Amino acid sequence: MDKPISVKQLARLPIYLKYLKNLKDEGVIQTSAPQIASANGFNEEQVRKDLQIVTSNSGKPKTGRLVQDLIDDLENYLGYRDSTSAVIVGVGHLGEAFMNFKGFEEFGLNILAGFDIDTKKIGNQINGKEIFPVEKIENLIPRLNVHIAILCTPTEVAQEVCDILIKSGVKAIWNFAPTILRVDENVIVENVNLASSLAILSHKLNAKLKED
Amino acid sequence: MDKPISVKQLARLPIYLKYLKNLKDEGVIQTSAPQIASANGFNEEQVRKDLQIVTSNSGKPKTGRLVQDLIDDLENYLGYRDSTSAVIVGVGHLGEAFMNFKGFEEFGLNILAGFDIDTKKIGNQINGKEIFPVEKIENLIPRLNVHIAILCTPTEVAQEVCDILIKSGVKAIWNFAPTILRVDENVIVENVNLASSLAILSHKLNAKLKED
Repeated sequence: MDKPISVKQLARLPIYLKYLKNLKDEGVIQTSAPQIASANGFNEEQVRKDLQIVTSNSGKPKTGRLVQDLIDDLENYLGYRDSTSAVIVGVGHLGEAFMNFKGFEEFGLNILAGFDIDTKKIGNQINGKEIFPVEKIENLIPRLNVHIAILCTPTEVAQEVCDILIKSGVKAIWNFAPTILRVDENVIVENVNLASSLAILSHKLNAKLKED
Repeated sequence: MDKPISVKQLARLPIYLKYLKNLKDEGVIQTSAPQIASANGFNEEQVRKDLQIVTSNSGKPKTGRLVQDLIDDLENYLGYRDSTSAVIVGVGHLGEAFMNFKGFEEFGLNILAGFDIDTKKIGNQINGKEIFPVEKIENLIPRLNVHIAILCTPTEVAQEVCDILIKSGVKAIWNFAPTILRVDENVIVENVNLASSLAILSHKLNAKLKED
């Protein structure tokens, strides 16, 4: 588990896992790095190296890989077996969509609660999860022992809320607010900027349509 | 508009736009590249170069920038003023969340309809948008003159559905299915892999918690 892994390698692991689960559903018992590579459009050597990291501690043979063994190793490596608790901060359009999103459980992420400033939302439940006032963050986060916050607030309050979260014990922020958060180097921030992603898509599409 | 722009530059533009809109709301009239840079944690020279591309066709002076002018230039450059139509394919957890998500309109993206294979969903409306059977894609996409599809299907059918979309005239796919799509080089694919993003976050957090 202690071999270094790059961000690009990590990003590929959930793709392998999805593919292997599909193989399993189709009744396939055995697979190989070349098969995984060609089915997913990756380089064979890349896949081999990625899997080496994941399986390095499992003591399993390196050839003729069993689908189920690989699934086990990947799920263990990615921590999908140990459910991790998280909260959603900012229950606007995206935050609400995420409170309803059942896909997180598949990734071992267990959403415990939401936080918002809107008194019309506070006290409501979405998908069985209660929405608390933002003022309760400092009190509740330590009690819930939560380390991950999914940040979906408007940009203009994102930094302020981020500071409160960190002060309350949050160590990792999955940031969907379209802004760059300033945090201590010991806090982990992973940005998903839908506006940026869409801007890239639209720009390329416009260039393409002009060409045609 | 024809100056080349990199993906990293494009990704920063929606962040500038959000920031400028906040300034405007606060009644600020004028701003500068250094101000935008320091407020968002970017390099000054970077911001200057990015804005140069966006404003190069506007004929406005390059110093003492008016907030409203920059907002106009950015919105025009990003195409937020011309609403672009899109469809959502795969109305599962994430697709349904996106059909309900009102934030897309802010980015000039107008969701016209959803497609799914589940007969229990077909014919239903979400947020005023009807869900059609996947078999109708080939018939409806050309009639709706839609160029963008938001792909939220399960991995195992993503490639198949992608092929149908392209055959029907879709030119850009915003791919949320955790897989690599194989497409012709004239089709634009922008991937958002939530599972990969979360894997990176979790892995870093686990490493961090072990350290502590």
